[in-house]
Amino acid sequence: MLKKTKIAIAGVGTVGSGVIKLFKKNSIQKNFGIEITAIASRRKIKKSDLGSNGINYFNDAKKLIDFNNYDILVELIGGDEGISKTIVFDALKKGKNVVTANKALVSKHWRKLNEMTQGKRNEIKYEAAVAGGIPIIKVLNDFLISNKIKKIYGILNGTSNFILTNMLNTNSKFEKILEKAQELGYAEADPSFDIDGVDTSHKLAILSSLAFNVNCDLKSIYVDGIRNIELTDLLYANELGYKVKLLGITQIRKKNLINFVYPCLVDHNELISKVDGVFNGIVVESDFCKKSFFQGEGAGSQPTATSVLSDIIDFSIKERKEKSKSKINIVKNTNILDRSGSFYLRFSTVDQPGVISGITNEFKKNNISMKSMLQKDGISKEKKCATIVVTTHNCNEKDMMKALKRINNLNFVVKKTTFIRIENFK
Amino acid sequence: MLKKTKIAIAGVGTVGSGVIKLFKKNSIQKNFGIEITAIASRRKIKKSDLGSNGINYFNDAKKLIDFNNYDILVELIGGDEGISKTIVFDALKKGKNVVTANKALVSKHWRKLNEMTQGKRNEIKYEAAVAGGIPIIKVLNDFLISNKIKKIYGILNGTSNFILTNMLNTNSKFEKILEKAQELGYAEADPSFDIDGVDTSHKLAILSSLAFNVNCDLKSIYVDGIRNIELTDLLYANELGYKVKLLGITQIRKKNLINFVYPCLVDHNELISKVDGVFNGIVVESDFCKKSFFQGEGAGSQPTATSVLSDIIDFSIKERKEKSKSKINIVKNTNILDRSGSFYLRFSTVDQPGVISGITNEFKKNNISMKSMLQKDGISKEKKCATIVVTTHNCNEKDMMKALKRINNLNFVVKKTTFIRIENFK
Repeated sequence: MLKKTKIAIAGVGTVGSGVIKLFKKNSIQKNFGIEITAIASRRKIKKSDLGSNGINYFNDAKKLIDFNNYDILVELIGGDEGISKTIVFDALKKGKNVVTANKALVSKHWRKLNEMTQGKRNEIKYEAAVAGGIPIIKVLNDFLISNKIKKIYGILNGTSNFILTNMLNTNSKFEKILEKAQELGYAEADPSFDIDGVDTSHKLAILSSLAFNVNCDLKSIYVDGIRNIELTDLLYANELGYKVKLLGITQIRKKNLINFVYPCLVDHNELISKVDGVFNGIVVESDFCKKSFFQGEGAGSQPTATSVLSDIIDFSIKERKEKSKSKINIVKNTNILDRSGSFYLRFSTVDQPGVISGITNEFKKNNISMKSMLQKDGISKEKKCATIVVTTHNCNEKDMMKALKRINNLNFVVKKTTFIRIENFK
Repeated sequence: MLKKTKIAIAGVGTVGSGVIKLFKKNSIQKNFGIEITAIASRRKIKKSDLGSNGINYFNDAKKLIDFNNYDILVELIGGDEGISKTIVFDALKKGKNVVTANKALVSKHWRKLNEMTQGKRNEIKYEAAVAGGIPIIKVLNDFLISNKIKKIYGILNGTSNFILTNMLNTNSKFEKILEKAQELGYAEADPSFDIDGVDTSHKLAILSSLAFNVNCDLKSIYVDGIRNIELTDLLYANELGYKVKLLGITQIRKKNLINFVYPCLVDHNELISKVDGVFNGIVVESDFCKKSFFQGEGAGSQPTATSVLSDIIDFSIKERKEKSKSKINIVKNTNILDRSGSFYLRFSTVDQPGVISGITNEFKKNNISMKSMLQKDGISKEKKCATIVVTTHNCNEKDMMKALKRINNLNFVVKKTTFIRIENFK
């Protein structure tokens, strides 16, 4: 049995509850030897939820200063000063590791946090601070570690993106969609942090500092939000072939650091223009890996909890290695005939009455129903022949193969029917 | 000074040359303390290219069996049997770490490779084996380690995707584009490995094994390639709102492992349908992180070299930690007025002659040239007013601000001009 990793969680709001839920659901304690030894929360927590003994509950995170029975502080309170700063700095001074989702803290105190861990064995990790559902910190720190980063740009704030997407899609004014976002819990009562670009600038500062190994000063970032974006401009932009997106852009050109946050028009052909709703999307341009694109859910407690847990498990890396090598699951392989899904079919038939009914008759016998039908000339040049293109609703592969076999033997079918599966990801 | 990590490179083909090039260009030896102690290649290598002493050159990779002065074997020869298998198994037996780009080897010998490293300190890493430009192995092993994977699907073969994309875009038959791909070096003289789905099935087997901790048998995968896809079907599909893509799909449903490789129709609204040309794209669905999407260059020596180097540096993790904490670069911050780019402008003016010339006159004075102009009613309801929407070519932010200040003071301008930046990523 390997040594257990002990964690103290400070803050049980949106992200904190997600972490505790994930911890329980996927048996993190059992699978990775990670144990919660303390939870600090101003709100009452149902202790039974955790079903494990030995957890110390504090109603004030300050009490963690006198508590030492942990290896990793998991700071999920937020804010760039006050209690979150106090306990993070205290933990680092004590030589503990820290995992945080706090972008305000990390972006503001970047230099100090770097200095405190310089040459030490302990570290601070913050995958959850930027784009919860995208492993962008790991991409920069691990995957692209050998590359020179040229430019990073992305949609880093789910709330703003939700608003811009819904203004266009529902033909609504900014104020109306902002209200809707507040109702749905995507936007705070005071939404300025999100819609004025402040949140994006915090995340951009972290990406910029990491990518270019600089100390990116928040004050040096040009920040403009979406408060003044009018529906009429979204519509004109759309007509011109663009979508309006709130981007954070960081780049070094001739030793100059460029950090801009502003709403801008992006071409419909760019992947980043397809990132809609509460999703985040990030493009990284680097010297050897060229252009990499990542999309994930930006808001929401569960993707962010995934990021927090990935950092926690990273700290207990040895245990993980053992785990990933452990017992192989036994499963049954599935035959393609077990597939259920829809189909695209192209029939080549003689051009005569009764063809459609002959085909649909076989469909009926095999529980296949049509979704659409095209009958067109122009592409096929064979004369006196008809081309019929059909898409179907979901059916069993087995039934379709049976139907096609029979259809191909019908006397009006002049060529083996072409079928291609339609993959539906809903 | 930390201990150096020594690597032996076997195979200097497309990927191997990329690794050596990246190694030199970004000073991997100096920055990460990684040293090449041996290179095995059947082709002659310009020794001066590496400019470092102490490298042993072998013309036969077998000679690495009697060579022990390395920590990591970097196997870039390829093939599921023969010399690559021999040296990888030999290295693992000796307790060395292995980094490989060899999907055939890893997918075929998955169980054996797992057993050989079980409970040992050494490991085999293969980020480069699946989708060179996407860190999908790290995403599964690190980022999503706490999640239950539900489904993975993706475009895993750049060559097939290049062919399908170009058939549609240039209205050409399969054979013609295959020839073009061969001319461009995207397809081999014998293209069956790529176009018949074999390559995709190897990569899928690795993803499936990792995601579900199973031993995915290659023979159990249903594999169909793109050889029989006709242009006419791409065109019909497009008309129906779909693109045809060669997908690998892996999923567990009710303890059944589903592994399919086939060309299929995917809706135009799915991000995966936007992955064109030699790019790869992968979607991972998981219980907490929901839907994550990744796109990167699929083929090509440089993105794959990035993956290889990420694994090598991962093995020397301590050195990396020191590096990422080291000296902070000093850079100059850029003011928004230093931006150069294009603009979307919406002018609200009195509807009278001379308006356009008044505006363009200011443009001319400030070196701004127009790209497009819309003049429309319908959106603006103010009477006797004109709305003019203009997009510009690249200009200096400074010049634009000067021009707008002057334009806003013109007597026919009734409202402050709306400007939104256009971001061009080419």
